[in-house]
Amino acid sequence: MSYTPPVKDMMFVIENLADIARVSQLPGLADSNLDTAGAILDEGAKLAAEVIAPLNALGDQRPSTWHDGHVKATPGFGDAYRQYAEGGWQGISHPTEFGGQGLAKLIASPCIEMLNAANLSFALCPLLTDGAIEALLIAGSDELKARYLPKLIEGTWTGTMNLTEPQAGSDLSLVRSRAERQDDETYRISGTKIFITWGEHDMAENIMHLVLARTPDAPEGVKGISLFVVPKFLVNDDGSLGARNAVQCVSIEHKLGIKASPTAVLQYGDNGGAIGYLVGEENRGLEYMFIMMNAARFGVGLQGVALSDAAYQKAAAYARERVQGRPVDGSGARAVAIIDHPDVRRMLGTMRAMTEGARALAYVAAAHADIANHDDDAATRARHLAIHEYLVPIVKGWSTEMAIDVTSLGVQVHGGMGFIEETGAAQFYRDARILSIYEGTTAIQANDLVGRKTMRDGGAAAQALLTEIDATLASLRTIDAGNAARVFDAMHRRLADGRDALANVVTYVLEAGKRDPRAVFGGGVLYVKLAGIVLSGWQMARALIVAHSKRADDPGFYGAKIATAHCFAEYVLTQARGLESAIVSARGDDAVFAMAAEDI
Amino acid sequence: MSYTPPVKDMMFVIENLADIARVSQLPGLADSNLDTAGAILDEGAKLAAEVIAPLNALGDQRPSTWHDGHVKATPGFGDAYRQYAEGGWQGISHPTEFGGQGLAKLIASPCIEMLNAANLSFALCPLLTDGAIEALLIAGSDELKARYLPKLIEGTWTGTMNLTEPQAGSDLSLVRSRAERQDDETYRISGTKIFITWGEHDMAENIMHLVLARTPDAPEGVKGISLFVVPKFLVNDDGSLGARNAVQCVSIEHKLGIKASPTAVLQYGDNGGAIGYLVGEENRGLEYMFIMMNAARFGVGLQGVALSDAAYQKAAAYARERVQGRPVDGSGARAVAIIDHPDVRRMLGTMRAMTEGARALAYVAAAHADIANHDDDAATRARHLAIHEYLVPIVKGWSTEMAIDVTSLGVQVHGGMGFIEETGAAQFYRDARILSIYEGTTAIQANDLVGRKTMRDGGAAAQALLTEIDATLASLRTIDAGNAARVFDAMHRRLADGRDALANVVTYVLEAGKRDPRAVFGGGVLYVKLAGIVLSGWQMARALIVAHSKRADDPGFYGAKIATAHCFAEYVLTQARGLESAIVSARGDDAVFAMAAEDI
Repeated sequence: MSYTPPVKDMMFVIENLADIARVSQLPGLADSNLDTAGAILDEGAKLAAEVIAPLNALGDQRPSTWHDGHVKATPGFGDAYRQYAEGGWQGISHPTEFGGQGLAKLIASPCIEMLNAANLSFALCPLLTDGAIEALLIAGSDELKARYLPKLIEGTWTGTMNLTEPQAGSDLSLVRSRAERQDDETYRISGTKIFITWGEHDMAENIMHLVLARTPDAPEGVKGISLFVVPKFLVNDDGSLGARNAVQCVSIEHKLGIKASPTAVLQYGDNGGAIGYLVGEENRGLEYMFIMMNAARFGVGLQGVALSDAAYQKAAAYARERVQGRPVDGSGARAVAIIDHPDVRRMLGTMRAMTEGARALAYVAAAHADIANHDDDAATRARHLAIHEYLVPIVKGWSTEMAIDVTSLGVQVHGGMGFIEETGAAQFYRDARILSIYEGTTAIQANDLVGRKTMRDGGAAAQALLTEIDATLASLRTIDAGNAARVFDAMHRRLADGRDALANVVTYVLEAGKRDPRAVFGGGVLYVKLAGIVLSGWQMARALIVAHSKRADDPGFYGAKIATAHCFAEYVLTQARGLESAIVSARGDDAVFAMAAEDI
Repeated sequence: MSYTPPVKDMMFVIENLADIARVSQLPGLADSNLDTAGAILDEGAKLAAEVIAPLNALGDQRPSTWHDGHVKATPGFGDAYRQYAEGGWQGISHPTEFGGQGLAKLIASPCIEMLNAANLSFALCPLLTDGAIEALLIAGSDELKARYLPKLIEGTWTGTMNLTEPQAGSDLSLVRSRAERQDDETYRISGTKIFITWGEHDMAENIMHLVLARTPDAPEGVKGISLFVVPKFLVNDDGSLGARNAVQCVSIEHKLGIKASPTAVLQYGDNGGAIGYLVGEENRGLEYMFIMMNAARFGVGLQGVALSDAAYQKAAAYARERVQGRPVDGSGARAVAIIDHPDVRRMLGTMRAMTEGARALAYVAAAHADIANHDDDAATRARHLAIHEYLVPIVKGWSTEMAIDVTSLGVQVHGGMGFIEETGAAQFYRDARILSIYEGTTAIQANDLVGRKTMRDGGAAAQALLTEIDATLASLRTIDAGNAARVFDAMHRRLADGRDALANVVTYVLEAGKRDPRAVFGGGVLYVKLAGIVLSGWQMARALIVAHSKRADDPGFYGAKIATAHCFAEYVLTQARGLESAIVSARGDDAVFAMAAEDI
């Protein structure tokens, strides 16, 4: 019934596709080697499977509750959080200088995935803390870092990100919250923030709110927004907790999913304002936020992989158990387990292929970040940073859009039972629906991919990846494929098609982006999907080559990987050309803008 | 905020694509003309918009409740049901001989659509009554008909379909409920039925359960199942209600959606069995059920169109109101309504195109049924019946799979607000998820399409439709497209591609179906989707031609239709080739069956 972290597949990706050997040679990452990864993933798997996952359904049935400004987490969550913090999991990839373990993002990524697969609502709390830590690391003064980071990294306090206001969601230029500078260099923060994940709760001693607000003399728009730390309880100089700050949780939302995760409306500034501390410089808040957001968006991409895997595991288990219907080929007169029906196989194969492809792409992106953060050579760092940044909106956008489809297939595999809440498949479907919305909708990812990640560098990052795909395509042709020849052929044909589709779209974006921006941005989400499909498919092609070479060592595991790559080629990569057509044919944008708004 | 039945578009389809002039010339259908349709749709729209739709959110918040065997419907539902019944809506297409209005299915279809768009949970009750009426009409004795049909048709009593048992869902050969014949020719029914929609409630005086069960000496499997009427209250000879029958509602389900619609577990046969009456002959129950099911499946297809339209209307309204973000083309410095953002346009255009295409296909299928049921000429009847029956699994499968995507886009257009239950977009998303499961999952539709509807007639029905598409393609080339030339070109290119893809798949199914059934059935769901896309796209092409010719009469409406056809061509029909590839490449089925079940 419950979730088993796929440690074997995670290790396969870490070793063979994301090249942990290379990562562990980076300065400062010697401990981030294959053995460490194996030990950590085994420990993380225990916590996720035995402590966190069993609370997932309960959190859905008994969400966090609000009373008079206080929020109570689902029973059991507090204890589980304590175990999470005590295990040192919050600090896994954060600097040792502030108490973290300083391990590679490549090792942190599977840990984050399994925590989210076990219980998305729970995992959001540490994920938001990671965001707050990241923001302070990027721009906090030494004093702020010293005061807050150790507590956040040890998990004693948690963090939140306060961006959204009723009138300012995707468009943060509309933020109205105010910050008035005081003589003591603190600020008084006032305003209303909404959609604040884990914005109030009883699992930790204190909560650090990272808040976007405007100073009175700030310029209008995005260049007049500053970032502040606003603690729920003020922190005394000796580190002990002081007075309650003027930030109140006035309500929490009633949501489609992630019900255990309280989504707070926070009111700042009764009594003249909440006391806040500037992070970095005034008016540069959005800039810091964007650096931090790369990490957060990548984390949400991992959530998509996580929910997809959890949904897949549940569906596969049900399909093995449920007996219904005779074989379509007439090979038996008795009903068989539905896993023997071709369409159930197709659904499970598609779910698994999309999940494994997206996982591989995410971990590979993590390894690029590690190199970008740690390599000795500046040019190498820059090259890997560009690729990582190109991949972030794709990992976020594609993995989350995919998760909606995969969790929907998970419901479908269960038939009527999938619609019954007690089965649990529906929870994944509901939970997944937020992923393509928060931390920037898929359209926001698409704007990033089109504008900042493709047009700005003239397609250089995309071209670097296309060149790598060409190398993989060549390998698919030159390697002796033996009894996997059909799979190699199919993968070569579909990946080559996908590669051309992606290349054509990149060319189109570069050529038409300035001249015809509405048409190009109108196809942006489809570009995210196309890139997600082709780049995940490329990882599956690489996985196929490795699995084929090692097949004799573990025929079950590697055979399944080969079959999964085949499913990816035939069921997922086949969508690439259609996406290309839809994107490129938007040229002139008359399909979408021909109608007057009032006729829509 | 609330739902407005799209009467204008419905009438456009009825008049121009489904050819009501032809239908109204059929024997017995003289009243089913354009004027009558207009009057009835206007009346139906009032009921749906003013009485039924306002209860939809309430039904979600305060579902039906069970207590001690009794089920209370959501407050207000009983009164709304009374108005529905008193308006004569239950009988709209049923025979005048039993009190119905005897109108064409083509006129009943939009009425069913708008009722379901207003409130899917509510509309399920009449839909199931339709199923019971249909079953009695197909096979009931004159006595059964006389006793039950008038009450069902006037809506005083409601009906249910009792097929599923815990071990028998998609596979009805596994039904175990028992029926023992008594000396008085009644039967005693015992067993447990699950997933019985509106299986118990307080909106009507009596409930007629249509129940599948086996007699003691019945052959095993599908050929040993009989159909019975089991009334909740026995009916005296004078038509008055007698004793309570031995059928009890032991619980109702806790579901992802359609929460106001009670999904009952019914226990038959305490005290020696519930009294039931045989419908037709023993052991032919499944045969009757399959005839009836065509109507029910078609109705569920309409539900898919209905929810898609409701979701579209809500999303479009929100997009017009919500101000967020500056224009991507730099044409303004202020935030604009999100409907002016290209990706929101793409989403709305895709939602609308899929909805209108599926509506047109469903109504066209309804007109085929009218001809099949009423034409004087047997050969004409047979020809149209074959096409109608080919279309039923497509209307059911495609409209419902599409509804999942469209309602998901509806959530996405709302951004973060879409995830908040009070917004209402999430309810459509949850409600829609049952549609591809009940009345036969999409895989069951696919088995029907592949086996009974394609292989059995050697592809004749499919070929007839392909030939009609060719005629439309020719028209797209010969008509003077004027200022719609780009749209005509795009539609011709995409529809021609789709037509070829569908033709290739039909050829493949015929060629490989016997030799390689697992591979062919493994692609069945994709064949349903491909056929849905191509045949809906064909309707949009026909709509384009009409709209272009009439554009000057109503530039807003016809201009929007032309733009919607363009969206269909570019965003939906472009998927056809990828589906073809995925289906045909399953050849040999090694992608899906290469893995051992235990490795999945």
